[in-house]
Amino acid sequence: MNFGDRLAHAVERRQSNLCVGLDPRMELLPPALLASLRPGRAGRARAYERFCAMVVEAVRDEAVAVKPQIAFFEALGGHGLSALERVCALARDAGLLVIADAKRGDIGSTASAYAEAWVRPRDGEPPVADAVTVNPYLGRDSLAPFLAACAEGAGLFVVVHTSNPGASDLQSLTVGSDGADRAEPLWERVARLVAELGAAYVGSSGLSAVGAVMGATRPHAVERARELMPRTPLLLPGVGVQGGGARTVGAALGAHRAGALVSASRSVIYAWRDGRERPGDWREAVRDAAADVRLSFRG
Amino acid sequence: MNFGDRLAHAVERRQSNLCVGLDPRMELLPPALLASLRPGRAGRARAYERFCAMVVEAVRDEAVAVKPQIAFFEALGGHGLSALERVCALARDAGLLVIADAKRGDIGSTASAYAEAWVRPRDGEPPVADAVTVNPYLGRDSLAPFLAACAEGAGLFVVVHTSNPGASDLQSLTVGSDGADRAEPLWERVARLVAELGAAYVGSSGLSAVGAVMGATRPHAVERARELMPRTPLLLPGVGVQGGGARTVGAALGAHRAGALVSASRSVIYAWRDGRERPGDWREAVRDAAADVRLSFRG
Repeated sequence: MNFGDRLAHAVERRQSNLCVGLDPRMELLPPALLASLRPGRAGRARAYERFCAMVVEAVRDEAVAVKPQIAFFEALGGHGLSALERVCALARDAGLLVIADAKRGDIGSTASAYAEAWVRPRDGEPPVADAVTVNPYLGRDSLAPFLAACAEGAGLFVVVHTSNPGASDLQSLTVGSDGADRAEPLWERVARLVAELGAAYVGSSGLSAVGAVMGATRPHAVERARELMPRTPLLLPGVGVQGGGARTVGAALGAHRAGALVSASRSVIYAWRDGRERPGDWREAVRDAAADVRLSFRG
Repeated sequence: MNFGDRLAHAVERRQSNLCVGLDPRMELLPPALLASLRPGRAGRARAYERFCAMVVEAVRDEAVAVKPQIAFFEALGGHGLSALERVCALARDAGLLVIADAKRGDIGSTASAYAEAWVRPRDGEPPVADAVTVNPYLGRDSLAPFLAACAEGAGLFVVVHTSNPGASDLQSLTVGSDGADRAEPLWERVARLVAELGAAYVGSSGLSAVGAVMGATRPHAVERARELMPRTPLLLPGVGVQGGGARTVGAALGAHRAGALVSASRSVIYAWRDGRERPGDWREAVRDAAADVRLSFRG
């Protein structure tokens, strides 16, 4: 089924726009998990896997999706990637959509290999993830293999605008004022490209399988993004630790209740570190934090 | 030691600017390796590892570096990444520089995790690779953790301009003609950023640890890149299968004999498929092809 439709159904069924970011970091894990830590990268990968599995279990009734951040697993090499694959399978078994936050970007057969790595079936098994994030700098042919996967049910989130200080270095530069075409910030040009590419993948829900990553700390930018990409699901990282808020999310949702995924990572999965800790059950704090975020954007 | 200096010394010692791309693909492997293929991703990862190990052995006297393309290993999941780690260790043992072609790009702790994955020491072991390729779309703070690694001996190659058709979608857009600053293509702005960031990492050889990836099919662009980034090592993919040639490489070298790495992948590692095959010894064809490329740019 088209990913836009799968997203729309999942949001409706679960009454949630929450996407929980899985960002496991050694120095932040629950003491109970650290106590049984085995040495080396294999041991750390196992700890990440257990932590993420418990987080998935804790948030499964509050979230609609999880977004594992590939970098943290990749830093543990092959062990980390194997652990990640198991976490993704668990999350899908729990009925959650899995968005691999990989921000890959390359061309030709390399781009195809990345699509195969994350959103295409392998060896008759389902794909590792339902959707993947990608970087647009290499242009439309770098996105083609992912679009081909979208035709088979995968989802794509193209990085359009981020919320870090460096976003202004390239993304905010004005393009097109040489008269060749419309003058606008580079990221808006990328947004147009995403809307254009996504038009062929709009499902019966009215949402496209081709989404966009929009940093959620700039409400005006999110409003503009929604205008430029009316049928594009927006993935909004940066709610919680990075800031963001209800107005931004409202703008992002637009006409469709499933038009935005609110991604919260540290504010949920490490909620128990923040004065909430209950001895013996950090998972309750995680569940409560997920419920708080979910409800804060559901009127 | 500074990566620019390590590169300069290696090029001088080996009298070679050749970087061999390790792009293993199942359907292109030598028949002898396919004959002993074991099933599943683990079997394929093992075949990739054996193939790359033999290529490293075949080119070790002709090349100065190898550039594994991470995507092909990543498509095999944890097994693939573990195989890749072993291939990188072998290549480094053979005295070759290893450039992880990962094109990663993210922010904050995520970017740090990618730097850790590829170019920082882990568990007291040397880094997986000597240098890594990165994508600039997220701006300077996304590069900061990699620059920090450069201060400890790592190298970085920022994707500046690629040679695919989609390069014109964003990289060639004119920025700055709103009068805010100089009007130029986006990729030239990125080139200036790379030169600026790299200035703090110039070694005694005169080369910076911060390099740039420049598609080699556009000689004029490479000349311009050299002008904008006089101390930046240029990694030139696209020689061989993708085109490119002596004039381009000459422009890229600039004033420094080690100013450019000529990256050839399929034209070298699959040379034996191209009418050159000698029964029982495809590795000789690989070695010969590597020697041809090396010598074609050493007058």
